[in-house]
Amino acid sequence: MAVPTTRPVGHDTGAHALTAGIAGASGYAGRELARILAGHPQLALQTAQARSEGFDALSPEALARCDVAFLCLPHGASRPFGEAVARTGTPVVDLGSDFRLDAGWAYGLTELFRQDVIESRQIANPGCYATAATLALAPLAEAGLLDAPLAIDGKSGISGAGREPTELTHVSEIEGGVQPYTPTGHRHIAEIERSLARLAGEPVPVTFTPHYAPHSRGLEVTCYARLRRSLTRAEAEALYRARYDAEPFVSVEERVHPGRLHGANACHVGIWIDERTQTAICAAAIDNLVKGAAGQAIQNANLVLGLDEGAGLTALGLGV
Amino acid sequence: MAVPTTRPVGHDTGAHALTAGIAGASGYAGRELARILAGHPQLALQTAQARSEGFDALSPEALARCDVAFLCLPHGASRPFGEAVARTGTPVVDLGSDFRLDAGWAYGLTELFRQDVIESRQIANPGCYATAATLALAPLAEAGLLDAPLAIDGKSGISGAGREPTELTHVSEIEGGVQPYTPTGHRHIAEIERSLARLAGEPVPVTFTPHYAPHSRGLEVTCYARLRRSLTRAEAEALYRARYDAEPFVSVEERVHPGRLHGANACHVGIWIDERTQTAICAAAIDNLVKGAAGQAIQNANLVLGLDEGAGLTALGLGV
Amino acid sequence: MAVPTTRPVGHDTGAHALTAGIAGASGYAGRELARILAGHPQLALQTAQARSEGFDALSPEALARCDVAFLCLPHGASRPFGEAVARTGTPVVDLGSDFRLDAGWAYGLTELFRQDVIESRQIANPGCYATAATLALAPLAEAGLLDAPLAIDGKSGISGAGREPTELTHVSEIEGGVQPYTPTGHRHIAEIERSLARLAGEPVPVTFTPHYAPHSRGLEVTCYARLRRSLTRAEAEALYRARYDAEPFVSVEERVHPGRLHGANACHVGIWIDERTQTAICAAAIDNLVKGAAGQAIQNANLVLGLDEGAGLTALGLGV
Amino acid sequence: MAVPTTRPVGHDTGAHALTAGIAGASGYAGRELARILAGHPQLALQTAQARSEGFDALSPEALARCDVAFLCLPHGASRPFGEAVARTGTPVVDLGSDFRLDAGWAYGLTELFRQDVIESRQIANPGCYATAATLALAPLAEAGLLDAPLAIDGKSGISGAGREPTELTHVSEIEGGVQPYTPTGHRHIAEIERSLARLAGEPVPVTFTPHYAPHSRGLEVTCYARLRRSLTRAEAEALYRARYDAEPFVSVEERVHPGRLHGANACHVGIWIDERTQTAICAAAIDNLVKGAAGQAIQNANLVLGLDEGAGLTALGLGV
Repeated sequence: MAVPTTRPVGHDTGAHALTAGIAGASGYAGRELARILAGHPQLALQTAQARSEGFDALSPEALARCDVAFLCLPHGASRPFGEAVARTGTPVVDLGSDFRLDAGWAYGLTELFRQDVIESRQIANPGCYATAATLALAPLAEAGLLDAPLAIDGKSGISGAGREPTELTHVSEIEGGVQPYTPTGHRHIAEIERSLARLAGEPVPVTFTPHYAPHSRGLEVTCYARLRRSLTRAEAEALYRARYDAEPFVSVEERVHPGRLHGANACHVGIWIDERTQTAICAAAIDNLVKGAAGQAIQNANLVLGLDEGAGLTALGLGV
Repeated sequence: MAVPTTRPVGHDTGAHALTAGIAGASGYAGRELARILAGHPQLALQTAQARSEGFDALSPEALARCDVAFLCLPHGASRPFGEAVARTGTPVVDLGSDFRLDAGWAYGLTELFRQDVIESRQIANPGCYATAATLALAPLAEAGLLDAPLAIDGKSGISGAGREPTELTHVSEIEGGVQPYTPTGHRHIAEIERSLARLAGEPVPVTFTPHYAPHSRGLEVTCYARLRRSLTRAEAEALYRARYDAEPFVSVEERVHPGRLHGANACHVGIWIDERTQTAICAAAIDNLVKGAAGQAIQNANLVLGLDEGAGLTALGLGV
Repeated sequence: MAVPTTRPVGHDTGAHALTAGIAGASGYAGRELARILAGHPQLALQTAQARSEGFDALSPEALARCDVAFLCLPHGASRPFGEAVARTGTPVVDLGSDFRLDAGWAYGLTELFRQDVIESRQIANPGCYATAATLALAPLAEAGLLDAPLAIDGKSGISGAGREPTELTHVSEIEGGVQPYTPTGHRHIAEIERSLARLAGEPVPVTFTPHYAPHSRGLEVTCYARLRRSLTRAEAEALYRARYDAEPFVSVEERVHPGRLHGANACHVGIWIDERTQTAICAAAIDNLVKGAAGQAIQNANLVLGLDEGAGLTALGLGV
Repeated sequence: MAVPTTRPVGHDTGAHALTAGIAGASGYAGRELARILAGHPQLALQTAQARSEGFDALSPEALARCDVAFLCLPHGASRPFGEAVARTGTPVVDLGSDFRLDAGWAYGLTELFRQDVIESRQIANPGCYATAATLALAPLAEAGLLDAPLAIDGKSGISGAGREPTELTHVSEIEGGVQPYTPTGHRHIAEIERSLARLAGEPVPVTFTPHYAPHSRGLEVTCYARLRRSLTRAEAEALYRARYDAEPFVSVEERVHPGRLHGANACHVGIWIDERTQTAICAAAIDNLVKGAAGQAIQNANLVLGLDEGAGLTALGLGV
C-alpha cells in the first residue's frame, strides 16, 4: 500500500532544499515519518525503503545520499545499518532501541538534552514510554525532589505494538478494559533511569508497568513519586511551568488526555500533590507515533540540519 | 477551554494577507475550523465567537470586518446571522443547514459545483452525509445510470452528534454495535436528492438511513443503486477514475475506511458491481469534521477568496 | 488457555442428564459454546476438542459418545468430521458453512424452520449475517411484499472475523470508522436467498455488503426493500409483532442496537416505512457469537434433544 | 425504557421463595441488579423503584415488604432511605457510599469480611475501585509486608461514571486515550485505607489516581507497593494462591484483563515482584457493574438470606 492516503495540493516540492530517507518505511513509525514529511517545508522524502512491495529496496548507500537518514528497523537490525550510514557522515536518527544506551549517540529527548542533539550527527530517538515518563518527572528530578524508587504506570494504544498482527493486537483481545503487560523488566526502564540519573545527579530507580488500552493512537503515563521535602501543588505547578514555559512542544495542563493530541508533536504534562502522603502525581500524554516516535525524530533532524526546530511540526492535535 | 491544544512553532502570523472569523467557535465544527486555520498559510483567524467563556462575543459586525466569515451556529440561528453578514458584502460560508436549499446561496459541494462557489459570496456548506453520499453516486448520476429509488446506508462517528452531551453520545450507549437512528426523514435527504437531480437531469429519490458507530471521527456511506444498463466493474471503475482523476481531494480506492482519513480533507470512493442483481455498490469515506464540515468550508473559502483551492488543506490522514 | 474465566459456584454437575461435545473448542464460537453450556441445567460439556494445548484431541469417536455434538471447524473440515459423527446416529449441530446448503441437513434458523430442526438429527447452524438478515426480512417475505432485488447492509464486530490475528483484526486498522469488505459475493448470500425464496415462494435475489465496525461483539443489518404494495408503518409493525409475538428470542423494537444484547440469545428487529419511496427499512441486531452462533446452536440442540427450547439460554443482554 | 432486553424463557418464577426490591432501578447499577436477579433461582425482583417512567414509585414501605432491599440511590439520598428500611428489620444492601464508613453497617467486601456480612442485616456494598484495589493488596496486607505509602493506579470504563450524560461520558471526549481524573482525594481512598488497616493491623496510607479509559464496562487497578522484606515472585504468587484458592470468585492469573470478565461476578488478581526495587506490583480486574456493584450486592444478600453465596452468580465472563 502506498503511504499517502490523499494527494497533497499546491505543494511545490521544488522548494525543498534538503532530502530525507527512511529505512523501514512500511511500519507505523515509518509511515508516520512519511506523513509528517509530506508537510515539511524544507525536507523532502527522497527514498522510502522497506522489504514490502511498493517501497525502495533497503540500501544504506541510497540512504547515505540523503541529507538525513531515519531508521525504523526491528530491534537488532538498526545497529549494522545505522553504523554503515553513520560512517558516511550522513546524519542518522534511529527510531529503534539499538543505540539508546550507546555513549556514542546523542539521546534525542529534545527538551532535556537539546545541546547533545545539536552537537551530534547520530541521534537515538527515545522510546515512546520513556519520552512521556521522563518529561513528566524531569522538573522534580532536576530539583532533587525525587525520593526513589518511584512507580510509573503507562497506558498505550495498540499502534504501539507495531503493525504485525498478533493475539495482543486483535480487537477482541483488547476491547473492554485496560490490561498490564510486561509488568516488570520493560526495555524502556533503562532509558528512563539513565535520563533521570543524569538530571538528578544520582541514581533514580523506577518501577514501570505498561498497559494496553483499547484504542489505536495515544499514550499516557502517571508517575507516583515520594517527595524529599514538602511541596504544595501551587509550588509544584510553578516549578513545572518555569521548566516548560519556553518549550513549544510541552505544556502544563489540568487535563492530560492523549485523545486531544492525535497527530500533534506535543506533550501535555500534569502535576498534582497528594499532601497526605507527600507524593507527587505527575502525568504526561503524547501521541506515541508523533512526539513518541516520528515527530520527535523530525524535531531532532531539524536541529541537526540547522533548521527551525519546529519546521513541519506545527499541526495541532485533532482534539476529538 | 481554549481551542489550540499545542502552541504553533515558527509560524509567522504576520505573513497572512487575509483574515477569517468564526461564529459558533466552541462546537466541534468551529474548533476544527480553528485547528485547520492555524496551519493555513494565507488565512488567519481574527475572531472566534461563541457564547462560552474564552471566546469573543457573537457579533455579525465584527465578523463582517474579516475577509471571510464562517458560521457554525445551531439550526435556525444561522439565517438571521448569515443574512446580516452577507448584506455587508463579506463572503460567508455557512456550515449549518439553513441555506442549503436556498437558491440564493451556492451549494458548496466543491468537486461537483465548483463554478457556483467561485461565482458566489454566499456558500452553504453541505451536510456530512450529503457530501459522502453525493460524491459516491455522482459519476453514476452524471452518466444517467441510476435507476431510482436507491438506498443509502450511512455510518457516522459520534462527533457528528455535536458536542452537547446526550444519551446518544454516552460511551455506554454507543459501544458494542452499530445502530440506526432517524431511519426515515433525515434532513440530509433533500440535499442529496437535489444534487443528484441536478447531476442526472431528472428526479432521483433516495432512501437514507444513518447509523451511529462506536467511534468519534469518521463517516462512511454505502449506496445500493440498480443500474439502467449492464456495466462491468472495470467499466464502472474507469468511469469513477475518469471523473475524479483530476480532483486532488477525491480518490478511487479498493479499501474505503474513514480511519485512514482522520484529519484529512479527503474523500475515498469505492465502486463495485453486483452482476447478479445489476446493482452498483458505491461507498465513500470521509472525516466528517474535515471534508464533511470544516475542511470543505475552507476549500470553498479559498475559492471565493481567489486562493489556491488546497491552501491549508494539505495534511494527510493519520492513517492509524 | 483454559476456557472458563471464573469458577462456577454451587453448580451441581451431577444433575445433568445429557452430555455435549465440541470439536473446535479453541475458537471464539467454541469458547462461547463452553461458556453457555456452563450454565445449562441439563446439558454438560463432556469433551472440548481442539488442536491447541489444554484441549482434548479431535476425535469423531469421542464426540459420538456424547448426546449431542457441536462442530466449530474451519470451512471444509466440517464435512468429513460431521459425516463421521452423523453416521453413528449422534445428533450434530454444525456451526460452519459446509452443510448450510445441503438438502440432507436441517437449516437451523430456529424461528423460521423449527419443525425441520425438531425432525432432524443433523442441523446446519446459520451464518451470523444470515440469521439477522433473514429474521429482519421474514415477515415481509412471508406476506409476499418484497419486490426484489433488495439491498442488505451488514455491520459486524471483529469477533466475527475469528480468533486468528490478521491485518483486519488489528485495532489500528479497525478503529476510527466502519469499512465495507467483500462488497459482493459474500458466502452468506446463498443462505439468505434460499431462506427468503422458501418463505416467499419465489426467488428473492439480494445484494449484500458486510462491513467491519470498531467493536468486538455484536452485529447489525439494515435491509432496504421495495414493497409490492403500499404499507403504513403501523401496518408493517403490526405484521412484525404478529409474526414474532410468540417467539421468546425475537422482539420488535424501536431501538435496534447490538450493544444491548451482548451475551443474550436474542434478536431485536425494527421495521420502518419510507413512504416517499415505498421502501421498507428493516433492521436486526444480534450478538453474533450467541444468536449468531453458539446460542442458536444450543437452541437447536435443545429441540433435537427434546428439552425446553430455551434451556440454558435465559441470560439477558448486558445492556451497557 | 423497560429493564429486560429480551424475555426469559422457561423461567418458573413461582419457584422463588424470596423477594427483592430495588430503589434506584433506572441507573446502571440498578439495571444490572435487575439483569442478574432475572437469572437468580431463589430471589425474585418484586419492586423496581425509580423516579423515571416505567418504574414503581420510590417507597421505603414497599421496599420493606421484600425479603431484601437493594439501594442504588445518589450520594446523600441513601442515608434516610436506608435507615427507614433498616428500622423495619428488612435486610438492606446499599450500593451507594453513604454507609461505607459507618460502624453500624457491615462493609461488604465479601471475601475479606464475610463473617461481618453474615452477622449483619445492614450491608454497605464497597465502591468498585475499592473492591479491586483491596482484593489486589489484601494478601500482602495480611502478611504485614506492605511498606506504605503505596500507589494505586485505577482505570475504569465509562459506565462507572453513571448514566447521566456529561462532558466526560461523551464518546468524543473519551476516545483515543486514557486520562486521569480526580488525581487526588477520590472518595474511595478512605474505604481502601480502612480495609487495609484492618487487615494489616496498622495504618496503610495510599495514593490513588483513577483514570477513564475508552470502553464501557470493566475496571483495572495496578498497585505499586514497597515490600518490608525480600520476596521472590514465586513466594508472592504462593501467598496469593493460598489466600484465594478457596474463593470461588477470585482467582490468581497471569493475564489480568477486565475484557475477559464482562458479566461475571469475578475478580482476577495478578502479582509480580520487581526485584530491582523490592516493589510488589499487584493488579486486579473486575466488571465494575458486577463484582464492583450489583454482583457483589447479590453475593452479600445471599449470605444475609442464608442462601448459597453464589446463587444467581454462576455466569462466566463473556471473554471477548
